[in-house]
Amino acid sequence: MSLLVVGSVALDTVYTPKGEIVEGLGGSATYFSVSASHFTPVHIVGIVGTDFPKEHINRLTVKGVDIEGLCTKDGKTFRWSGRYDESFADPQTLDTQLNVFADFSPQLPHRYREIPFLFLGNIHPALQLQVLEQMDKPKFIALDTMNFWIERERKLLLEVFKKIDMAVINELEVRMLTGLRSIPAGMKKIQQLGPKIVVVKRGAYGSITLIENELFLLAAYPTENVIDPTGAGDSFAGGMMGYIAHHRKITPKVLRNAVVYGTIIGSFCVEGFSIHRLEELNAETIEKRLVKFREMMNF
Amino acid sequence: MSLLVVGSVALDTVYTPKGEIVEGLGGSATYFSVSASHFTPVHIVGIVGTDFPKEHINRLTVKGVDIEGLCTKDGKTFRWSGRYDESFADPQTLDTQLNVFADFSPQLPHRYREIPFLFLGNIHPALQLQVLEQMDKPKFIALDTMNFWIERERKLLLEVFKKIDMAVINELEVRMLTGLRSIPAGMKKIQQLGPKIVVVKRGAYGSITLIENELFLLAAYPTENVIDPTGAGDSFAGGMMGYIAHHRKITPKVLRNAVVYGTIIGSFCVEGFSIHRLEELNAETIEKRLVKFREMMNF
Repeated sequence: MSLLVVGSVALDTVYTPKGEIVEGLGGSATYFSVSASHFTPVHIVGIVGTDFPKEHINRLTVKGVDIEGLCTKDGKTFRWSGRYDESFADPQTLDTQLNVFADFSPQLPHRYREIPFLFLGNIHPALQLQVLEQMDKPKFIALDTMNFWIERERKLLLEVFKKIDMAVINELEVRMLTGLRSIPAGMKKIQQLGPKIVVVKRGAYGSITLIENELFLLAAYPTENVIDPTGAGDSFAGGMMGYIAHHRKITPKVLRNAVVYGTIIGSFCVEGFSIHRLEELNAETIEKRLVKFREMMNF
Repeated sequence: MSLLVVGSVALDTVYTPKGEIVEGLGGSATYFSVSASHFTPVHIVGIVGTDFPKEHINRLTVKGVDIEGLCTKDGKTFRWSGRYDESFADPQTLDTQLNVFADFSPQLPHRYREIPFLFLGNIHPALQLQVLEQMDKPKFIALDTMNFWIERERKLLLEVFKKIDMAVINELEVRMLTGLRSIPAGMKKIQQLGPKIVVVKRGAYGSITLIENELFLLAAYPTENVIDPTGAGDSFAGGMMGYIAHHRKITPKVLRNAVVYGTIIGSFCVEGFSIHRLEELNAETIEKRLVKFREMMNF
C-alpha cells in the first residue's frame, strides 16, 4: 500500500575524508522516499525553491516517487553544508540556509488524504500535527524527531506521540525524552507516551527495537567503504516503512524484517554521496546483501 | 580441556550510581577465571599481597579455579578505585596502587606448562612473552591488551601478536594498532599480524568478530539493571575462552557460539558489584538467558 512522507528536500554540500559534493540532492524526505520506493509507491510532501534543479525532480519521479505534494515556492531551496572527520560521526555544520523551508506549511493534495501509511519526518511538531489533521485516519503512522524539538516543543511533541504507532529515534533522544539512562527502560517509557513500536537507531552499531513487549536487537551491516553518512537514518526509516507498507498485515515478524531491510538500505546509503547508491539499487542487490548479512549473524 | 589465565587479581573500590563496594574482589584474572569456570577447569597465574583476604581465595577455589599459580608476596595487593557516572561509560580512576603487582614476574608451576588453552590478560607484553616461553606449545592462545602497551611497547606487543590465535580488543585499540578508522578493515590488518581470530569488543553495543574470512556480528544483551560494569570485558573473554576450551575441535561454529556465551556471561557480570552475579550463576540461568537472547535476534 502507498506511503506518504513529509519532510525536507535540500541541496547539501558535504565534505568527508573520501571527497565532497556541492549542492547534491539531499533532505530527509529525499533519502526516505528513494529508499522506500524499492518496496512500495511513495508520495512526498515538501517544499523547494524556484532554483531547484529540474534534473533532481526527475531523479525522484524515475524512482516512482509521486511529487504532486512537493510544492515549489518563490525563493531558494533549503541548503545545508557539513563536514565529517575521520570518525564519520556527527558532522560539523558549516552552514544552514532554511530559505523556503522556513515557511513550510504542509498542504496535502486532496488525493493524499487517504494514504494509509504516513511518515512524519523531523519537522516542527506543530507541522506534524497539521499533517495529521489533514489525513483520514491512516492505518500506520511513524515519526522522526530531534533534540531541538524535545527541548523546545516538548508539549506539542508529546501531542504527536499520542497519535503515532512507531517512533524512530536515537539514543540521545530516548534519554532526553524520558530522563532515563537505560535505553531498554527508556523505550518502555516511550511506549507509554503512545507508540507501540519504538525503534532506536545506534548509528554504526545498529538498532534496538521494542515491538509490543519484545526487544529486537540488530547490528549494523559492517560497511567497509563509508563515503558519506548523510541520510543514513532517513534511508533506514525509508527502507523500514517501505517494507511495512508493502505488507497487508503488520505482524511482529513483518516489523522485525522491516528493521532488517531498513538496515540494509541504510548500509547502501553511506557508500556514496547524496542518493547515488540508493538510485542504483535493485531487488537483487538488496537480497544479496541480506543473505550476506544474515550469514554474519548466524550462530 | 583446561585453561590457563595470566593477569591481575585486585581489590577494587568502585562507586556507581547504583551504590559502592569497598575493596571488593576484582582484577582481570579474577573476572576471567570465575566466568570461564562455568565451562571448563581454570588455572590462574597472578600475584597478591599478604593482606589478600583468605575468604577471596575460597571464592575462587569453590568455583574450581586452581590457584597454585597465584603467588603471595610480602606487601600489599594491587588496589584500584574508580567512579562511574550515569552513562556507565569509561570510569574515572580515583586511585591505582600497583603494590606487589608492580613486580609481577609470572612463574608457572611446572604442571601448568602443558595446559592447552592460554589467555594472556592485559599485562606488559614482555610478561606475556615470558609466559609463552614457559609453555609447551599451547593449542590455542588468546590475548587482551590496552592503549598503553600499544603506544609504549608496540614492538614487543607485535612479537606477542605473531604467536597468538585470537586477539580480544576494543575499537580504540584496533584503530591505534592499525591506523585505520574502519573497524572491519582494521580487523583484517590485525589478522596479518598473527591472530586468525580478531574479536572486537563494543561495550554496550556488543561485538564484531573476524573468524578466518567471515565477520560475525553480535549485539550485547540489553541489560536493564546495570550495577557495575567493572570486569565486563574480562567476563566476556572468560566465558568465550571457557567455551572454546570445553570443545575438542575449534570450528567457526564453536567460535561463534563462544562469542555468544561470552556475551551472556558479560551481561550477568554488570548486574552486580565485583563477581557477585558471576558466583551465583549456574548452567540453567545461563541457558535461560541464551534462549531469551536468541529470541531477541530472531528474524
